[in-house]
This record gives sequence, C-alpha cells and structure tokens, in this order.
Amino acid sequence: MNNNKHDPYAMGLEQNPANYLPLTPTTFLDRAARVYPEHNAIVYDNLQRSWADTYRRCRQLASALSQRGIGRGDTVAALLPNIPEMLELHFAVPMTGAVLNAQNTRLDAETIAFMLDHANARVVVTDREFSATMKRALQLCQAEPLVIDVDDPQFAGGELLGTLNFEQLLAEGDPDYQWQRPTDEWQAITLNYTSGTTGNPKGVVYHHRGAHLNAVSNVIGQNLPPHAVYLWTLPMFHCNGWCYPWSVTAVAGTHVCLRHVRADAVFEAIRAHGVTHFCGAPIVLNMLLNADPAYHRMVEHPVTVTTGGAPPPAAVIEGMERIGIEVVHAYGLTESYGPAVFCDFQQAWADLPQADKAAKMSRQGVRAPMLDELMVAEPATLAPVPMDGRTLGEVYMRGNTVMKGYLNNPQASADAFEGGWFHTGDLAVWHPDGYIEVKDRSKDIIISGGENISTIEVEDCLYRHPAILEAAVVAKPDEHWGEVPCAFVTLKPGESLTEREVIEFCRQNLAHFKCPKAVAFSELPKTSTGKVQKFALREQALAL
Amino acid sequence: MNNNKHDPYAMGLEQNPANYLPLTPTTFLDRAARVYPEHNAIVYDNLQRSWADTYRRCRQLASALSQRGIGRGDTVAALLPNIPEMLELHFAVPMTGAVLNAQNTRLDAETIAFMLDHANARVVVTDREFSATMKRALQLCQAEPLVIDVDDPQFAGGELLGTLNFEQLLAEGDPDYQWQRPTDEWQAITLNYTSGTTGNPKGVVYHHRGAHLNAVSNVIGQNLPPHAVYLWTLPMFHCNGWCYPWSVTAVAGTHVCLRHVRADAVFEAIRAHGVTHFCGAPIVLNMLLNADPAYHRMVEHPVTVTTGGAPPPAAVIEGMERIGIEVVHAYGLTESYGPAVFCDFQQAWADLPQADKAAKMSRQGVRAPMLDELMVAEPATLAPVPMDGRTLGEVYMRGNTVMKGYLNNPQASADAFEGGWFHTGDLAVWHPDGYIEVKDRSKDIIISGGENISTIEVEDCLYRHPAILEAAVVAKPDEHWGEVPCAFVTLKPGESLTEREVIEFCRQNLAHFKCPKAVAFSELPKTSTGKVQKFALREQALAL
Repeated sequence: MNNNKHDPYAMGLEQNPANYLPLTPTTFLDRAARVYPEHNAIVYDNLQRSWADTYRRCRQLASALSQRGIGRGDTVAALLPNIPEMLELHFAVPMTGAVLNAQNTRLDAETIAFMLDHANARVVVTDREFSATMKRALQLCQAEPLVIDVDDPQFAGGELLGTLNFEQLLAEGDPDYQWQRPTDEWQAITLNYTSGTTGNPKGVVYHHRGAHLNAVSNVIGQNLPPHAVYLWTLPMFHCNGWCYPWSVTAVAGTHVCLRHVRADAVFEAIRAHGVTHFCGAPIVLNMLLNADPAYHRMVEHPVTVTTGGAPPPAAVIEGMERIGIEVVHAYGLTESYGPAVFCDFQQAWADLPQADKAAKMSRQGVRAPMLDELMVAEPATLAPVPMDGRTLGEVYMRGNTVMKGYLNNPQASADAFEGGWFHTGDLAVWHPDGYIEVKDRSKDIIISGGENISTIEVEDCLYRHPAILEAAVVAKPDEHWGEVPCAFVTLKPGESLTEREVIEFCRQNLAHFKCPKAVAFSELPKTSTGKVQKFALREQALAL
Repeated sequence: MNNNKHDPYAMGLEQNPANYLPLTPTTFLDRAARVYPEHNAIVYDNLQRSWADTYRRCRQLASALSQRGIGRGDTVAALLPNIPEMLELHFAVPMTGAVLNAQNTRLDAETIAFMLDHANARVVVTDREFSATMKRALQLCQAEPLVIDVDDPQFAGGELLGTLNFEQLLAEGDPDYQWQRPTDEWQAITLNYTSGTTGNPKGVVYHHRGAHLNAVSNVIGQNLPPHAVYLWTLPMFHCNGWCYPWSVTAVAGTHVCLRHVRADAVFEAIRAHGVTHFCGAPIVLNMLLNADPAYHRMVEHPVTVTTGGAPPPAAVIEGMERIGIEVVHAYGLTESYGPAVFCDFQQAWADLPQADKAAKMSRQGVRAPMLDELMVAEPATLAPVPMDGRTLGEVYMRGNTVMKGYLNNPQASADAFEGGWFHTGDLAVWHPDGYIEVKDRSKDIIISGGENISTIEVEDCLYRHPAILEAAVVAKPDEHWGEVPCAFVTLKPGESLTEREVIEFCRQNLAHFKCPKAVAFSELPKTSTGKVQKFALREQALAL
C-alpha cells in the first residue's frame, strides 16, 4: 500500500456521531422492542413477557444498578439458572457500562469466593437454589458485594441471603432510563471464568464488539430465522450461553427459559412453545435420546440442536435425526465467545451412508462466519500443517470473536496470544476439504511407542458399543511403551460387560496399538461444565 | 459512567493481531472459497464459476492492479453492466486497498468525465456496450486512467477503447496473491455518485466497516439463507447493488449475472437457476407483471424480491404475490449504503384485507438490523415528531451504515451530518407502530393553501387506476393557492382517458384539495437510476 501518497479518501471524512457508533449487542434489544413490542421475548413456565416489557425491565434494572453506583469497571456477578432474570442481566449490566460475570452454578463455594474476589464483584445476584454455596462463598471472600436474591416461586427451598430481592432492586430504577452505549466498542461486557481442571480459574474478558459479532455469527452460521424460538438448555453461564442471549434477540425471537434441563421438560417445551432451536453438549443429547420414546413423538416440527464441547458420536447424530432434530456441530472455547467453528453441512454429504455422514458431521469443521482465521499448525513454528487428515497440529484462531484477554493475568494473556494467534491448546488434523478435526487436548493426547493416540478416537469407538453409556480414555504410564490407553466406562442400566469384551470390541474397530490396555467400570468424574475430569482419571489409572 | 475510577478491564487487555482485525467484506469471499470451493459463485449465460475459481481470479486481479501501482487512495472506475467482471471488481479493488467507483451506465459522457476527474480515476474498466459514451468521456476528462476493456461475447457492437482487456490484465497477476486487509476498517472501499437532479453529482464514500455491516444487515433483515441464489436485476452501480455483492457472498450463495433486465430473461433465470432472491425498483416489478402470463407460470418455487427507490403500489404487491413472488419493501439512500430501513412484515398483517395489507407494506418501515437509530423529526430542532401517522417531519439516521461523507466536499458532508444525524431530505410521518412512511422528498412536497400535499400519495391514487401505467405529480405555481398539484400520466397500451376522468377518479379517492388541477399525458422523463425527473416536470407544468 502506498501510505505516503496523498489519500483523498482520508480527508474531511472523519467519524462523527451520525456515522460511527460503537458496536454493542444491547442495540439488538432496542430494535426488537421497537419493531416487535408485543412479540413474546421470554417464556418461563406461565410467564410470557413481551419485548417492550423486557426492554422496560432491562432499562429499569440498569437504572437501579447505575443509581447504586455501578458503572464502567465494575463487576456484577450472577449465580443463576436459565431464568428470565439471567437473560435480563445480559442486557441491563452492559447498559450501565459494567461487566457481567455469570457464574457456573455447579461450582464449590471456594471457587466462587475466588471469583468474587478476583473480579472484585460489587453486586451478586443469586438464587435460593444455590444459597448454601453462595452463603459460604460470601463468608470466604474478601469482596463485599451488594447481594440480590431472585426469589423464584418455581423453586422451593434454600434461603434468601441478600439485602433486597431482584424485583425490589428493579423497582428502584427508572423504566425510561436513557442508557448509553459504551464509549468504545472494545470496552468489556462480560467475564467468564474457565473451568480450569487445575489451578485457579482464569477470567476470560469479552468486549461489546466481539459479543455483537459473535451473536451475528450465530445468526448467519445457524441460519437463525426471524422470531426463532430458542430453548435455554445450554447454561447462560457457559460463555454467555454461546452468545445466544444476544443472537436470539437480534432476530426478535423468543427465549424459552428453563430452570432444570430434564428430558420431559425439554420435550414438553418443544411441543408447547414451538421451539425451533436449542443447544447442548452431546451428553444432553444422549439424555434426550434415552428418554421415553413417548417424548420423542412430541417433536412434530423442525428443530435444530447445536452441539459442542465434545464431538457428537455417530449414534447421537443418527438418534437425534430419527426423532426429527437436526444436529449441527460447533466447536469453540470460552476464549472464543463459545462457537467459533461450525461443521457446515455440505450438500454432497446428504447421500452418504449414515456412518460416513456422521463421521463428516462429528468433525469440528470450518470457521464460523465472523471468525477471521483458523488454522491447524505446528506449535513450534506456527507453520500450517498439510491438509492431509493425518498430520497433527494445534488449532489456532484469529479474529474479532477472540477474547480481549484474561483479567489481571497479563502473562496468561501473552501466552495465549503468542505469535499473533490465539492458542487453543487443542490438537487436530486438517482434512483435505478444509475441515478440522480435533483429536485431543494437547495435555490429553497419549504417546505410545512414539505414536500419537487420540483419546477422542478411542472414546468414539467405545461409544459405538451398544452397552456403553459413557466412556473416557486417558494415558497410563507404561515402562515399555511410555504411555498406554486406559479406558473408564459407564454402562447403560441393566447392561454388563467385561474388560476383555471391551478391549476385544476396540480391537475389531481400531488399530491394536490404540486399544485400551486396561478398562475400569465406573461413573465418570465431571467438571462443573460437564466435561470429564481427565486429570482425576489419570490419577485413578495409576492404580489400575 | 465512572470514567475516573480504576478500571481493571482496561489494563493488559489491549488489541493484538489475534483478537482484533479490521472488518471488511472481502473476508466473506475468503470464507466462501475455503468452505464451499466447488459451489457455484457466479452463473452468467453458459458460464458457471466456483467460489474457488472466483477467489483465485479476484486475487489475481488484485495482484495485477497492485503491480500496476494501484493501492490506497486510488480510484478504479467501472462502467459495466451486471456481469461477472463487475462482481469481481467489488472484491479485487478493495483487496488492493483502492476504492471502486461503479458508474451508472445510463449517464452521459460529460457526467462520466466529471466523475473521472473528481475521483481522479487511475483505472477505468469499461464495456463495448458503453464505448461511445466512455470514448467521449475520456476525451473530455483531464484524468488519464489506464483503460481496460471487458470484451464480452454476449454483447455485439461497440468498440474496444483500452490498452488491454480484462483477461489480459488478470493474466498479469498472481492467483496466489496475499492480499491484505485494510489497516483501518474506516478506510474507504467504494465511491458512489448520487444521481443529483441538479448540479454536479456528489461522491458518496463507503468504508470497509460499513460495507461489512450493511452486508450482514441484508442477510439478517432479509433472512438470506445459506446458498441463496441471487439474480442481478438491480444494477451493481446502484449503491454497490445495495451491498448484495457482499451479502450473497457472506452466505456462499450464487450470483446470477444478467446484462439486460428484460422480463423474459428474468423469468427464465428464475426457473433455470432456482433464483431465490432479487431486487428492483417498483418499475421493474411493474415490467415483470406486465409480461406474458406464460412467464409468470415459470415461478415454481419461493422467490423474494426486495423493492425500493419508491413505495411499491398496492397493485404491484398484490400482482407479485399472485405469481408467487414475495415483496419486501426497503428504503434507503446512496448515503446509507442502500437499504437502511425495511418494512418488516408483522404476523398480524397476514389476515388483513389485501388493500390494508398493501398499505402497511408500502410504508418504508423500521430500521434495518444494523442501522443504529432512525427518527422522523422537526428539521429546525431535531425533536422527534409524535408517532401519530400525521405529523410531517424529516427522516434522520444514525449508524455505522451511514456514509463516511462526500468526497472532496467537506461543506456538503457537514450539512448532511449537521446536529449529529444524517439528514435524508425525505419527509415522512411516523406511525403509532413505529413504522415510517415517506411522503415526499422535501423539495417535492406541494404546499397548497398552507396544506402539505404528498405527491407520493396522489401518485399512489393514480396508480390504482387500471388504465394508468405510470404517474408523477409535481407542484405548479398558483396565484390563489400558492401551489397546486399537476399530474403527468402514461397510459397502458390501448387505453384512453381524459383529464376530467383522471381528476374525477382522484376526487373519489382523495381529499379534493389534493387532487391534480391539471393532467398531462406523456412519457415520464427519468434519471439514469430510473427515478422520475420531477424538476423537468415542474418546468413542463409551468406551461400547462
């Protein structure tokens, strides 16, 4: 580019209030409320709330928070299920300029206390369901947040901990509050802690620009139509519900809230509210598949589920499609605002045998519409690996939907962004068609006799066994091979299997060196986000 | 906001190459080519070109231009019909950092010469169809651009004017050219001259950010699905085809190119290529409606047309729907990247009588997904008018999809942005449901006896007469009333009407003071973009 020459397009054409405004997803709410004021924004049990009312409540809440001194640089924490208040906070907190930290409801008090202190939470919104944990966390932490209770009649039990409840706080505010956009679209909007299997969780900071763009990315990548009806099965504390609070609002859809994800409630909501889309980990899909077939017959209109967190096993894809729910596979990390890669369906796959089709669909895929760059590369050099479907490399991303960084952790941020790419820590191959397939977390891969073994590949094989409900594979140190695979298996109710039968099944389907050398039958320990805690299994494997 | 206090979210969380990239619509091409390399990007007569090939050609063209010294600050002008080369320029020119000026093919040589000089065009891409005009323009202008001919076998006649032809230029480039994003998303991407009924045209400058966002706005606002098949009836020189070169690419759709917009070609393309979407002024829709009904029967799958430039008369909406083409009404200006306002269809309208439904649909509507703010306000004070459907005000816009400004015209830019809003110059009412309805250009409105008369309203009445093909209404000075309406009418072939019959028809449907006092039967003079030249009619009206 000829930067030194006269550029007539750079003169007298500056930004001004008419042609430049910071991007923020809160404008989606403003538009939905103005264009579709009477359309249902939120459905929750018997509650139906319009976009006009939702906007009014969000402004009122923002006003109340603002009057209590909450603004830029402040953190508002929330420990809530997928209820309307949680959705409202996704708009009201950013409207004040503050940052929302939606906390994982499955965490222990110590971790929550750590987060309250790390983020210096000025307000905590909590729910009776989690009051025991929060009560202890508030005792443990140094921070002295204003505590607000959601007092939801849908949940009996627990106790109120706060100074006032959500509706009382709301009542303090002005429903006509003139909220302001961020002065800069790079301003922080939310904070999401990674579930970190070891060490303290890291606080991933999102900004208004990225939240706006990833919300749009979902709409385009998932072809979310106007007035999509979205069921809240994926926790909103998980990467802000993969940005769907903003995506669904951008299409003036309806948020169907749900306190507990149970198969009966999910299928009843699909039927009662005409749900068109929902999200969930493969394990949630598995639960739905294992529900009474009478529930499956409730799916009488097209429904799409976006799944991620782990590759959906072929049986899950097949099973969901059989009951009329289309499966889309997405991949991402907390650091990428959730979904950053979609397994875009290619027309040519439609005619493949089911197993081949599922194999294509269980790959992580290609970059989402708003992710700028994606590659599988050699960690030492950042040189892309060949697209041969075999060479293992690390997954790297670049784009506006990559986090701002880790809060108060410049070293972790610098490491994550080293070389100008975001390091996912996931190992993958790059297929000739450009689709990536994650083989393992870099810390989970097994190296046996110098060969890489993808624990995901072995697990995928185990999942295909009809008696196996869940499976996880980890490395076990071995004098001869260095490491060997070791499997942990949960059987379906009423089923039985021997170690030898499991190994034999694997040997029929995998190269022998990839087959588990030991098999243990047990429940799998999980992180608060439902991921198997492999570090715990690795310890158990030492004893096998 | 508490700007002065410590903000932990602003420290150690700076932009870096992994998490911040300038927005640009050229990335849509990169993604389409990587994810859907074999999918048809372009169809033109017998040509079918994949996304991979299209990307390769665009990079090669960008490389060739770059090697010839074209880069940031330079203008590449194009006088082309809606052919593949025009689409390629929409990506290749921005890839070099330069600015594309797509010129209106209906303009005269003097105006083209003015634009070439005003933009200091370094390259001109032209077509034999317009060689007579361009030849003369090149003689008239001071600029000495490199002239490139598109030598399209689909057009016979004209002459080649240039140093080399498009394919020769392309062959100079490297198909693996590593194009760079703009260093700043505010950088100019295209230049579009307004058709300006008086005085020199003004050069409206678009930037990468706005082009990206308005492309996304179309995708969401029009629910453009993955692989939409888009027919190029709207000229790409018209606000860059309302940003559809980028929108259709963002969904990896197919661009069906078309040199001449004729009813037979449009319907044949719809059938042959499975066209799902196209755009056009109501006058184009009228032409399609007046085609042989045998063509209408070619529409055998759902098709959506987005129309704008003038409100679609009820008869046009009804007629299009009868042949199976859904009509969406959009409104915008060159200064707003084309469509900035959509008449979002409300579910409640579906059950209205056809005339009432059409009345709702012919309003301009509500802000498009990416337009940030829209209002009808009092010009003197910028105070919003009441949403009463009666009070007239000017339409104002704010947002990232408002132009950068006018090239080399700081005064015009300052005027357009006065008070921090973009002044559209259109007069409208604001309905209670938040939809705006444009009543007139501020310079076209008729003030008769102190009452405002919307020429659009009178024209809409005239269009409802079954014998009238086209109508335009202008002010005629009147000693008693100040101004009175005067109508110019074109009859359908074989029809006849008297002045008295026309006035009588109006008096049955309009308040008497709004009815034309004089009626002339003639062809209507049009601007190069197909808009009626009311200034010419006002002169003619003086003689009536």
